[in-house]
Amino acid sequence: MILDIRQKTKVNLQPIQQNFAVSFNYEIHFTNNLFSLKNPTLAQVITSDGDKKPQKVVVVVDAGLLEFCPDLLQQIANYTNFYAEVLTLASAPMLVPGGEAAKNDPNLLDQIHQLVETAGICRHSYILGIGGGAVLDLIGYAAATAHRGVRLIRIPTTVLAQNDSGIGVKNGINAFGKKNFLGTFAPPYAVINDSAFLSTLCDRDWRAGIAEAIKVALIKDPIFFNFIHENTAALVLRDMDTMQMLIYRCAQLHLQHIANAGDPFEKGSSRPLDFGHWAAHKLEQLTNYSLRHGEAVAIGIALDSTYSYLLGWLSHSEWQQILNTISALGFQLYIPELTDTSSLFPGLTEFREHLGGELTITLLQHIGKGIEVHQVDLSIYKQAISLIQDLYTKVVCSDWV
Amino acid sequence: MILDIRQKTKVNLQPIQQNFAVSFNYEIHFTNNLFSLKNPTLAQVITSDGDKKPQKVVVVVDAGLLEFCPDLLQQIANYTNFYAEVLTLASAPMLVPGGEAAKNDPNLLDQIHQLVETAGICRHSYILGIGGGAVLDLIGYAAATAHRGVRLIRIPTTVLAQNDSGIGVKNGINAFGKKNFLGTFAPPYAVINDSAFLSTLCDRDWRAGIAEAIKVALIKDPIFFNFIHENTAALVLRDMDTMQMLIYRCAQLHLQHIANAGDPFEKGSSRPLDFGHWAAHKLEQLTNYSLRHGEAVAIGIALDSTYSYLLGWLSHSEWQQILNTISALGFQLYIPELTDTSSLFPGLTEFREHLGGELTITLLQHIGKGIEVHQVDLSIYKQAISLIQDLYTKVVCSDWV
Repeated sequence: MILDIRQKTKVNLQPIQQNFAVSFNYEIHFTNNLFSLKNPTLAQVITSDGDKKPQKVVVVVDAGLLEFCPDLLQQIANYTNFYAEVLTLASAPMLVPGGEAAKNDPNLLDQIHQLVETAGICRHSYILGIGGGAVLDLIGYAAATAHRGVRLIRIPTTVLAQNDSGIGVKNGINAFGKKNFLGTFAPPYAVINDSAFLSTLCDRDWRAGIAEAIKVALIKDPIFFNFIHENTAALVLRDMDTMQMLIYRCAQLHLQHIANAGDPFEKGSSRPLDFGHWAAHKLEQLTNYSLRHGEAVAIGIALDSTYSYLLGWLSHSEWQQILNTISALGFQLYIPELTDTSSLFPGLTEFREHLGGELTITLLQHIGKGIEVHQVDLSIYKQAISLIQDLYTKVVCSDWV
Repeated sequence: MILDIRQKTKVNLQPIQQNFAVSFNYEIHFTNNLFSLKNPTLAQVITSDGDKKPQKVVVVVDAGLLEFCPDLLQQIANYTNFYAEVLTLASAPMLVPGGEAAKNDPNLLDQIHQLVETAGICRHSYILGIGGGAVLDLIGYAAATAHRGVRLIRIPTTVLAQNDSGIGVKNGINAFGKKNFLGTFAPPYAVINDSAFLSTLCDRDWRAGIAEAIKVALIKDPIFFNFIHENTAALVLRDMDTMQMLIYRCAQLHLQHIANAGDPFEKGSSRPLDFGHWAAHKLEQLTNYSLRHGEAVAIGIALDSTYSYLLGWLSHSEWQQILNTISALGFQLYIPELTDTSSLFPGLTEFREHLGGELTITLLQHIGKGIEVHQVDLSIYKQAISLIQDLYTKVVCSDWV
């Protein structure tokens, strides 16, 4: 800078370089029966913020939960009464439809903004978001944009949300028929994983979230993959201790990647955590979201693993181990939309467009070792699809057809 | 973490602490005649991103500009043709209404999102936003939320946008009758300040932006305040060198505050750069935005300076110097809405609510030294308003009544 206003001499208006960093810190808590009056976790999270008490809270709840947790709203009311010195319910809880429907209706976004406005929620008040990944994505987007960001405590209720989407830094809704077309990067204020919600899940939702654990294990941690491989029976039988360990390790790996891979807000083109996701996103759309996200990811993993095998990177036994693990958990690996390649392959372009820059797809070099490529051979992808079709056409999982 | 998946021993699922930092870097360039074919600034900014060329660009333009720059769209077309190896215009420029109207119509947000979608803009492509602060706030919000953030090059065309709103990290639109109710913190990819746009401004817009320079000088830099005080005549006579120096120093002070004050995304309750703004935001709303933001800020500064004087902090001569400087620049310091205190004072609550936490207002201890307070005495504010009314009722600035 060569500007001396005392001398009033304008020599040259050099560019001003602006550089700064913003720190983000949040905790993921693991608990059971969050709204039991004996459980202080939520009250402690709010107490520790250092602001004047009680703090205003509004609650947005996945309506699908109430079928399995009919007492939830009463529990929340009792809890906030019991901890009235810490938090005040500033409005009756708002219900939003569960699943992808939450992300397809822009009116829901407006309604949450309206709730923030009428309840007088400020940037130091709290939104509690309770639900599956899609509902949390919607609530997260609303929370991140009201007043330029109010505090969000995420309470993920599915396996997938507890080990992946609910603990990370993204939110979003769908627009123009494209998944997550609108959204921001906005870390939560805190996350509370309550294992009690997991026992209420139907088998599909219990299973679906395991796909993200397989994904992160395959690209980062062969020991973790082996753990999943050896525990497929326990997982199918819904052993809660095994599931808790799976969620914890999966969450750790996701969080470590966000913190340590150097690009938490994805300014570059690399996105290894989206292994298997280019096809998954497209298959969700092609099935009108009748596929769960995790179910689509399982197919996407099978596809990109098979492609990696056909390229000669994965050994035959590694490839088989991957497919057998996914299949043993009850995932269906073939659906007719997979062979509709003229609809499926544009998913590659959309995946590139969403992230920007050049196409970057993660494949597998070994179990536990991802590798990035910038171009793909569609004829080999067609072979991969044929292989999966031949192997898995006859396996039909009755509970989702 | 005490979880050994090899032993399958779940000892205790301790909370996982997530900590990371995100770096933000961008340059503010100062140039003249940005779209002259001889001016490589914009092409250089895009060239330096390291991505494959040419890069896709869409342009969103403040429609109010075309009255004074009728050739602007043609110049943009010529420029992009000339630098075709660097950038490609992916769609015809989109026009949005200038001024606060841009922030009051949610359809405009949807239309920019639609433009991003149809033009195939990805996170590595560019939106060029050209216009005043309000238009850039709208475009910034749209850019920050499409694909979770596409690159935005801001080209601010007013004094206020070049020295304050256009160079910072915020965006936003109005909702529920509240200013900036929706928005995010999202640094631009780059900013290019083109002095040629300033000569097209009407006197009101030329003057209005000076208010933000007075503001930042009063809280941070007595030498800069003295520069403004001594150059009111040159500024009224629209001396461009003086204005350029004012913009440069004002931009520097704003950027230094964002980078160095420790809270660029305003997680706390402190917001010294909003000196004079609690009343300004409310007066804008009470006048249905017939007041320019800078005009409202000038009144807000006068009010909070007078309040500081009545508290015994500012000396009589400092107070007079401040009011005389603002007045000499042609700002009107009294408007009838100022005395409607039952409408004005709720602006304090709204200011607190927007930021959250406890009420935090910046006042002046001296010229160049702001100080934060957490409560105010409304009876003294009423005295301050009466003082300003007595002093300035007769001064009517004909060009805005």
